[in-house]
Amino acid sequence: MTAGTSPRASGGGEVTYGIDVGGTKMLGVALDADDHILAEVRVPTPRRFGRDSRHRAADGALVDALARVVDRLAAELASSSVAGACDVGVGVPGLVDDHGVLRFAPNLPVGTGVDVGAQLAGRLHGARVVVDNDATCAGLAEWTSGAATGLSDVVMVTLGTGIGGGVVAGGRVLRGANGFAAEIGHMVVDPAGPPCPCGKRGCWERYASGSGLARLAREAAHAGRLDVVVDLAGGDPEAVRGEHVTDAAAYGDAGALGVLAELGWWLALGLANLAAVLDPEAFVLGGGLADHLELVLGPTRRAFDDLLVDRRYRPEIAIRPALLGERAGAIGAARLAREESRHHSGRG
Amino acid sequence: MTAGTSPRASGGGEVTYGIDVGGTKMLGVALDADDHILAEVRVPTPRRFGRDSRHRAADGALVDALARVVDRLAAELASSSVAGACDVGVGVPGLVDDHGVLRFAPNLPVGTGVDVGAQLAGRLHGARVVVDNDATCAGLAEWTSGAATGLSDVVMVTLGTGIGGGVVAGGRVLRGANGFAAEIGHMVVDPAGPPCPCGKRGCWERYASGSGLARLAREAAHAGRLDVVVDLAGGDPEAVRGEHVTDAAAYGDAGALGVLAELGWWLALGLANLAAVLDPEAFVLGGGLADHLELVLGPTRRAFDDLLVDRRYRPEIAIRPALLGERAGAIGAARLAREESRHHSGRG
Repeated sequence: MTAGTSPRASGGGEVTYGIDVGGTKMLGVALDADDHILAEVRVPTPRRFGRDSRHRAADGALVDALARVVDRLAAELASSSVAGACDVGVGVPGLVDDHGVLRFAPNLPVGTGVDVGAQLAGRLHGARVVVDNDATCAGLAEWTSGAATGLSDVVMVTLGTGIGGGVVAGGRVLRGANGFAAEIGHMVVDPAGPPCPCGKRGCWERYASGSGLARLAREAAHAGRLDVVVDLAGGDPEAVRGEHVTDAAAYGDAGALGVLAELGWWLALGLANLAAVLDPEAFVLGGGLADHLELVLGPTRRAFDDLLVDRRYRPEIAIRPALLGERAGAIGAARLAREESRHHSGRG
Repeated sequence: MTAGTSPRASGGGEVTYGIDVGGTKMLGVALDADDHILAEVRVPTPRRFGRDSRHRAADGALVDALARVVDRLAAELASSSVAGACDVGVGVPGLVDDHGVLRFAPNLPVGTGVDVGAQLAGRLHGARVVVDNDATCAGLAEWTSGAATGLSDVVMVTLGTGIGGGVVAGGRVLRGANGFAAEIGHMVVDPAGPPCPCGKRGCWERYASGSGLARLAREAAHAGRLDVVVDLAGGDPEAVRGEHVTDAAAYGDAGALGVLAELGWWLALGLANLAAVLDPEAFVLGGGLADHLELVLGPTRRAFDDLLVDRRYRPEIAIRPALLGERAGAIGAARLAREESRHHSGRG
């Protein structure tokens, strides 16, 4: 498949839309039948309740934004509209039940409880909408045509605002009893750690995600270990964000590299826990933080070799960057929607 | 199946031997073709190297003890000897590779590196020997005829000297890429925690196992919170063992109950982490500590409900005692051996 954006027009063939909903942005793609990306759109994820703070206003914000993404993708394809049958896949950061309802999404306050599937289908006048966990979508894309192609036991780890997971075990996607498996970001790795939006303390994603990086950096800044980074942030330790750290680290700043090594240690801790439970051949790391993986992978690999319970007695477990980049979730969501559509129309 | 010991003799039918190797004792059973237990034997697990401290002496100690268990079972059955073809299954606490070699066993120092399968087969003159992880054996027994019968997603947790695991996901035993899956006792739950024989710090089994109970109790004793228990132990906080705590708790001692509640909290933490990754319908708790489960299950259940990431949005996950008791591992090992034998002789 082609992972890059292709300028060629749709040409009237079958188009499938895929949208990956992150904590800060939504990324939509339109795929043709050969998995070429025909169009791509990015919009911010709605973060607040509407003027009306009742629950229905929140519902509307997410579904409105999703519908806008589809409209803009269709406009880029010069289609007059998406009225009528089209297939849309949506990957969301949280627990999705078998009916497409987002049951719980600590990193997406506007999403919890929203019946994304039915509402978006209604808004798009007859579209077929499939909703699944974002990391499951990304994992599916990497497994079928990315960094995990051909493997039978692999864990996809998406490092975004939080941490998502997609697990393939014995050649099958691990779903669990309710479809909620692979919520790996909420393994507790330090019961005395910082509070998590999920209500617990010390979840893995408080340390090894994009927001974890910012938190570790602010701690280091307050401790006086990040002078260059604090300068980049305008002098206020509380203003330090992840990109200040990765910018300074790219220039070799020792303080910034130290924070990334700390993040790598926590990342390795969670990977080692997952290896103890799942015994995979490889981990595939994707998500926004993966753009800076070359700064983190070395410390992660070294710490992982220390933390893996049986490191001397097993083949090395690969830790690889995802190949499909930030588009993995959207591509996987589109592919799920197409599979579902083929399944129902008997074209599979 | 009949889990209790049956006095009836073998009657010349097919007999399969199963041995569960624990950190402190080995339990062997002889099963007839209908899964009746014909004989049962317990011996201490060899704990030290022989007089000769080189590696081969350690090898011999474990295999010698296993052969003795089979001999004693055969003697109880009034068989003259086990010479010739017999099927023996062995469950061991550690990582077993596809060839029956015990690759790593932090709670069984005499076992690491031992080719249990080949050596025991040699010692027993032609027996067919199958070796697998002890908790996998116990999980298999509980899944096929115990507390997890009929479930498709379940985690068996054996609380012994350490913590072992057996996972069924989507109706299949989860094995992992190397057969090493479900080493759940070595998830790190507190990176600043006490050192583990595996080389890491703060592994789950440092808190929620039999040895974890003793450790938590000694901490509480030194802190002056366990006067009754320390009296039971002869007045020395360092002499406190798990059974002093469970004895005192059975009489309602508040200090002892407090330690068991603490253990329950740590048990719940690991279960919640596993639920986040695997989304099971149920946990089945077995192993030696499970004999006192009625004292621990209440605090565990309450803490689990607090610690489960998506507790409000999913069906309740059951936490049940194992049904086959301490014999689950031996029964599962015997059953594995019988299956393997049928498979190879075409009788399956």
